Amino acid sequence: MNLSQALLNQNRLALTRLLTQVENNTEQGRAALNALFPHTGKAHLIGVTGAPGTGKSTLVNQLALYYRKEHDFRVAILAVDPSSPFTGGAVLGDRVRMRDLSGDKNVFIRSMASRGSLGGLAQSTSAMVQLFDAANYDVILVETVGAGQAEVDIAKLAHTTLVVEAPGLGDDIQAIKAGILEIADILVINKADRPGVEHTERALNGMLELSHPTRRIFQHHGRSMVIEEEKVYDQQNTWIPEVKRTIAKEGYGIAELGEAIARHVDFLRESDEWSRQTRTQLQVTFDTLLRETLFNRFLDELSPQVYADTLSQIVKREESPWGAVESLLKTFL
Amino acid sequence: MNLSQALLNQNRLALTRLLTQVENNTEQGRAALNALFPHTGKAHLIGVTGAPGTGKSTLVNQLALYYRKEHDFRVAILAVDPSSPFTGGAVLGDRVRMRDLSGDKNVFIRSMASRGSLGGLAQSTSAMVQLFDAANYDVILVETVGAGQAEVDIAKLAHTTLVVEAPGLGDDIQAIKAGILEIADILVINKADRPGVEHTERALNGMLELSHPTRRIFQHHGRSMVIEEEKVYDQQNTWIPEVKRTIAKEGYGIAELGEAIARHVDFLRESDEWSRQTRTQLQVTFDTLLRETLFNRFLDELSPQVYADTLSQIVKREESPWGAVESLLKTFL
Repeated sequence: MNLSQALLNQNRLALTRLLTQVENNTEQGRAALNALFPHTGKAHLIGVTGAPGTGKSTLVNQLALYYRKEHDFRVAILAVDPSSPFTGGAVLGDRVRMRDLSGDKNVFIRSMASRGSLGGLAQSTSAMVQLFDAANYDVILVETVGAGQAEVDIAKLAHTTLVVEAPGLGDDIQAIKAGILEIADILVINKADRPGVEHTERALNGMLELSHPTRRIFQHHGRSMVIEEEKVYDQQNTWIPEVKRTIAKEGYGIAELGEAIARHVDFLRESDEWSRQTRTQLQVTFDTLLRETLFNRFLDELSPQVYADTLSQIVKREESPWGAVESLLKTFL
Repeated sequence: MNLSQALLNQNRLALTRLLTQVENNTEQGRAALNALFPHTGKAHLIGVTGAPGTGKSTLVNQLALYYRKEHDFRVAILAVDPSSPFTGGAVLGDRVRMRDLSGDKNVFIRSMASRGSLGGLAQSTSAMVQLFDAANYDVILVETVGAGQAEVDIAKLAHTTLVVEAPGLGDDIQAIKAGILEIADILVINKADRPGVEHTERALNGMLELSHPTRRIFQHHGRSMVIEEEKVYDQQNTWIPEVKRTIAKEGYGIAELGEAIARHVDFLRESDEWSRQTRTQLQVTFDTLLRETLFNRFLDELSPQVYADTLSQIVKREESPWGAVESLLKTFL
């Protein structure tokens, strides 16, 4: 029996091996992705991102536990670390996972370091997610650290994106939020027992109000309430990000967060956003693959001498990169 | 007189206009880059990166001021914000710059938001840096927020990379450092008047010791001293990252940081690293340009109907992205 077939039969060793093949972008990995593709498209992909120090890993663990206990879902966790591009190792994930999860054969945890290549991280993430999907995991939690381009690229792959904040993480965190807010479906204020939680919540609600003018927020006993939220998004066919407080360490707020995620899934299904997203995800996968393959084929067909000579002319500034690309393509396409 | 010629004559308006052309990747922008390329290769490119809250912008302002006052260098600042991919606006830079810089016509400040495309940010940054270089700026400070792939890509473009830290920025900041350390030529502990500075410095030195076993560190009156540093890097022809304390707000430590940067430049020149780096930078520019141009040409030549049909087959899962790329390329190359 081959590895792909074994993966479909939920063999963990086969999954582990294929994840490695796919991460290393081997021929065998690509063949498996190709063979398994008809079996994908079922899983709910949840992206979890946010600055360091917000407690993302603990939150992801708790969400996994919640899905196991409350829904009996099979859960995969992929911890992606874009800040570690050179090591090939992974600093997140495997080490710090909860004991409650480690014995459960319906939970699979994997970490991945960035491969350092442009576009490579989103590509590997997308491919690994497809393996989990084919292996019949209902929920795939993709955890990323930081707040850069990698997170945005990964958010494009996710059905639901959680952005995790924590009170009191520095002064110019506002600057980060301005960009990251736009990818958030749900904003989680973790470590909500910390001082400053009201301030963080007010700031987030204020920014949401700016970007969603129809969202009316009433302060009520120090917590925000979104009035007529359902009506608003039914009318406009847009999702208005919710703000949720959690204390992941103690399990506080996890069930409520799970319910908010479920509301988002309902919204996606009812508004046809789910299929639109799926289409976008597949297009990103396709485009990235096309771009990389084209480039690699081109380099394969180009004689190494021509490439080296061209580069050497550029370094001597006898030829510009723009001019060089033009003349190389002219002889080829 | 055309814009490129005006830029060479240090006309600010021409520079502003061409920066916009290049940022938007227009035909005119590419033509200007091509024309100006022989005039590039002189500037010292300094990348400044680090987590939010470390006071990078203030540090960059102070460095600019230092280069103006102490060296009479012409200084360009490019503030890149990879966390803001959708807006097209820029949250960093222009707003918060010091009054001391704003009246100086030998200082040019520009901010750029990410274009949201894979590889696009590094490409735009590289192109904009070339304009500054051609416009005869001696030092180009490229400031990026965050600690993700974008920073790594931009670090590959810089001759000297500063990674800025600050005491007490959260628990799992260690995870970030593991990756980011590898791109740092100089580690700056800004806000060094904050509690915890000794701890941060010890942690950084500890990590440096792990990655550079020959680096011997002696604790002396609570500050670290690198013994025989010069000897070590003369012998091994490698640069050992220095750790510098600053309080940018008060100008403390800026001159010392400037001297460390000058030592790094000396090292680059003497060890021939400067030309090796230039070569790498130009290769990255060339490869990225080649990859993007290939992809765009391919899409141009493909009929939109074929692309749409292929995508639709993928969405229906009748064809996998891998299979689709193979068959498209077979008919083309």
